[in-house]
Amino acid sequence: MRTLRSYVEGRWHQADAGFVPLHNPCTEEPIAQASSAGVDFGAAYEHARETGGAALAGMTFAQRGELLAAMSKALYQKRDELIELSTLNTGVTRKDAKFDLDGATFTLSYYAKLGKSLGDRTWYAEDEGSQLGRSPRFWGRHLRLPRGGVAVHVNAFNFPAWGLAEKAACALLAGMPVISKPATSSAWVAERCAEILVESGALPAGVFSLICGSSGDLLDRLGERDVFAFTGSADTALELRGKPNLLSASTRVNIEADSLNAAVLAPGLDREGETWNVFLQDVTREITQKTGQKCTAVRRIFVPHDEIDEVQEALCERLSAVVPGDPRDAEVTMGPLATERQLDDAIDGVGKLAAEAQIVHGTGERVDGRGAAPGKGWFFGPTLLRTDRAADVIHRHEVFGPVSTLCAYGGKMQQAAAEVGRARGTLVTSLYVDRAADLTAYLAAGGSTSGRLYVASSKVAAQLPGSGTTLPAMLHGGPGRAGGGEELGGLSGLTLYQQRVAVTGDRALLDRAGAD
Amino acid sequence: MRTLRSYVEGRWHQADAGFVPLHNPCTEEPIAQASSAGVDFGAAYEHARETGGAALAGMTFAQRGELLAAMSKALYQKRDELIELSTLNTGVTRKDAKFDLDGATFTLSYYAKLGKSLGDRTWYAEDEGSQLGRSPRFWGRHLRLPRGGVAVHVNAFNFPAWGLAEKAACALLAGMPVISKPATSSAWVAERCAEILVESGALPAGVFSLICGSSGDLLDRLGERDVFAFTGSADTALELRGKPNLLSASTRVNIEADSLNAAVLAPGLDREGETWNVFLQDVTREITQKTGQKCTAVRRIFVPHDEIDEVQEALCERLSAVVPGDPRDAEVTMGPLATERQLDDAIDGVGKLAAEAQIVHGTGERVDGRGAAPGKGWFFGPTLLRTDRAADVIHRHEVFGPVSTLCAYGGKMQQAAAEVGRARGTLVTSLYVDRAADLTAYLAAGGSTSGRLYVASSKVAAQLPGSGTTLPAMLHGGPGRAGGGEELGGLSGLTLYQQRVAVTGDRALLDRAGAD
Repeated sequence: MRTLRSYVEGRWHQADAGFVPLHNPCTEEPIAQASSAGVDFGAAYEHARETGGAALAGMTFAQRGELLAAMSKALYQKRDELIELSTLNTGVTRKDAKFDLDGATFTLSYYAKLGKSLGDRTWYAEDEGSQLGRSPRFWGRHLRLPRGGVAVHVNAFNFPAWGLAEKAACALLAGMPVISKPATSSAWVAERCAEILVESGALPAGVFSLICGSSGDLLDRLGERDVFAFTGSADTALELRGKPNLLSASTRVNIEADSLNAAVLAPGLDREGETWNVFLQDVTREITQKTGQKCTAVRRIFVPHDEIDEVQEALCERLSAVVPGDPRDAEVTMGPLATERQLDDAIDGVGKLAAEAQIVHGTGERVDGRGAAPGKGWFFGPTLLRTDRAADVIHRHEVFGPVSTLCAYGGKMQQAAAEVGRARGTLVTSLYVDRAADLTAYLAAGGSTSGRLYVASSKVAAQLPGSGTTLPAMLHGGPGRAGGGEELGGLSGLTLYQQRVAVTGDRALLDRAGAD
Repeated sequence: MRTLRSYVEGRWHQADAGFVPLHNPCTEEPIAQASSAGVDFGAAYEHARETGGAALAGMTFAQRGELLAAMSKALYQKRDELIELSTLNTGVTRKDAKFDLDGATFTLSYYAKLGKSLGDRTWYAEDEGSQLGRSPRFWGRHLRLPRGGVAVHVNAFNFPAWGLAEKAACALLAGMPVISKPATSSAWVAERCAEILVESGALPAGVFSLICGSSGDLLDRLGERDVFAFTGSADTALELRGKPNLLSASTRVNIEADSLNAAVLAPGLDREGETWNVFLQDVTREITQKTGQKCTAVRRIFVPHDEIDEVQEALCERLSAVVPGDPRDAEVTMGPLATERQLDDAIDGVGKLAAEAQIVHGTGERVDGRGAAPGKGWFFGPTLLRTDRAADVIHRHEVFGPVSTLCAYGGKMQQAAAEVGRARGTLVTSLYVDRAADLTAYLAAGGSTSGRLYVASSKVAAQLPGSGTTLPAMLHGGPGRAGGGEELGGLSGLTLYQQRVAVTGDRALLDRAGAD
């Protein structure tokens, strides 16, 4: 059995106690173990801040961009190996493994290019500025300066590579060293990514560390210059963001939490049109991709009440074609849930939803997986529920699996917007809409309850990546229950790791001093 | 004795119990009383959200700008009356009263103009966007959409008009109704401002409410769409920002806390030059203006060790000319502290500083004020301390009065930056510097420990407003101990009250739908 290690203080640390097992979710066999026992978190933090901080402070944006490009390249070169390991460690299909890994390398290379475009500087002005006094000599502008702290990233189990890479890309480009803590159940993939990065020789000392196992007292060490970014459940987020040291030092905290994302079908779409087709295709994928274990997955599907029977029939037909099982079997199109706990929660969660909605596809119980031993493996088939009434639980309880609920709405976009808003903030809402007036109505009535609006219409149907795909150029994060965070979004993704500073004075002096 | 009222649910509410007295700080006489007993906070919140929210949602930015212009004009028309009332309620000199009131009207009129420039829209795109797919049809951009919540503003006692107005200007322009709660000791000025605004007829129903007295359970009612903005002490901020409902709903919280702001004198300035002069003039004003009761006041003055004797002499000479007393006496140049508690804290605080620094001007005790009865009034003379060693307490303990400490540094800007950073985050640092290389060195070594850098140099000396002046075009807020908040800064000041939403789709459709 493989023992995972942490990479701290510029070396690999292997614990000798306190292990937590990792399992192959298709066989339930233990395959590895992780523990951070013996890690000196104080020394790890200091090493990142001092050694890593100095290394990044001495690099321009262009040089940091080269670092990200080298990281992207190193991971890409081991893509096949990482796909195999992902399947072993997390039970994902090859396609789902690629989704995670290609997301990681693409995001790194996107920010690599952004670094190149920022050039040979270590800070920049975010605006040209404005005249403040009687003459244009007295001038003010806002700089984005490095903060000199450490970024601690706590990632979710569902994207061991992408989660690690997208957060690291923004922090490193902004000049902040990273300590990354993957969720333990999928930490083998993250550990291997870290090994590849370390072995590539691309990483200057101290700029990147990895904690496999518990984060110990690391979060208690964070202060006013540091950043804590978390992706995971709303419950854990609430516990962590309330830590007294984070509150009293105004430590930057970014939360990206699971949320009850919605898809909205505009009324009266042409059944032969591309928008209708892409709606069925997207929603089916968003239910089943990564076995529904995505923070951006569609949990609620709002359909005009007079079209819901038709949509139900079409979705059930598509879901019937899904084959859950061990991805090593070539027929399998959807892997198991990641852990026994996830399976138990899914079974329990569908039970909660079924109290107010009707199961129209699936059983709400564990299933045997194709290619897996009977009774073994955390398999759960795609599950669709339906409610025509104003059910409440579907806006409150998220089932983190291949589970979604069809909900009828009156057929006006304003009504759909109000229903979407009942979940109190989500990461993404997908709108399947061809008429500008419908989109305007949605924006005006409730466009602000999601961090991202994915507008699918006929003219772009062939180019759409799916609502669950996080693009580095676009904001990732949402209000309220989704955590209120903001990640990615091009240059804005660096903001979390920078200090915005107003500078006022003699414009010529500011320019000469590099405050431009 | 005047009984202050609250303005909630579109009417004035007068309590009949639970009163807290307000005093004239020059005479210690009670002059008014405040209580929010009997306010229905649930109804007040709902009225703001429903009625006020609908009113603002129906107004374009240009119309909201007209609202702010009308508010500014209404307050300006009562300027003389408000100056008188400020002196009675808070003991400030006429000059200090004008500083508060003119700050209020100027900020309102600044955002009024910004509203006009945003025009006949209710949302806008913050960027042109970028191509996301193979063709430029698939496009993404970021919108700033209204959030549909309520802004609760808890203001500090020192700027009863400005604090109310600057926060309200940004929230109202962004389309969010405001419930403003002034600090009780200076709430009479805030109540009169609110009366003037209500009487002006400019305010649509529900867009502005005022709570005089305790905020009751108002904060417990805030959810995922709302904003809570607080200005005041770091201790109170810590208590409030940790409220479970705010954390669990990801309610937007903005904190602007007192901080240990610094002034830095670059080495080797010409004694006959403008920069040297403006340094002495600024620092003297920043110690004494508003009797030192400003969140932006200079608490630490860093001077090269071989210039500190000279600076001490010059500052003591200027401070000797300050006349504390009742502002109704024409000779008086500095008023009392605002409350008995503030006086006790100042006496106690100077005692703490004096354990590690030497008092070189002032006594650290209460003084009798000119024009005031002996033994009466919360007067405290300007107080300068000095330390040539690496004192620690001056970076930790703030005395919220006319108190500052001269500190020697080695003479290199990097050293000054490190010393400034020891206070763990401040609102503003003023740099008195003529050489670009000195400014560059400061930026590189520690420019990010303050939210604002006020660079004073010879060519702009005649135009400088003073480091304590918050300009609406520039960010107000600072990292760490200063609360980590961001207010003002032109259009950025609206961000707190808006939702940033990524929108992706067919560019032509987005444009037609008004998502541009």
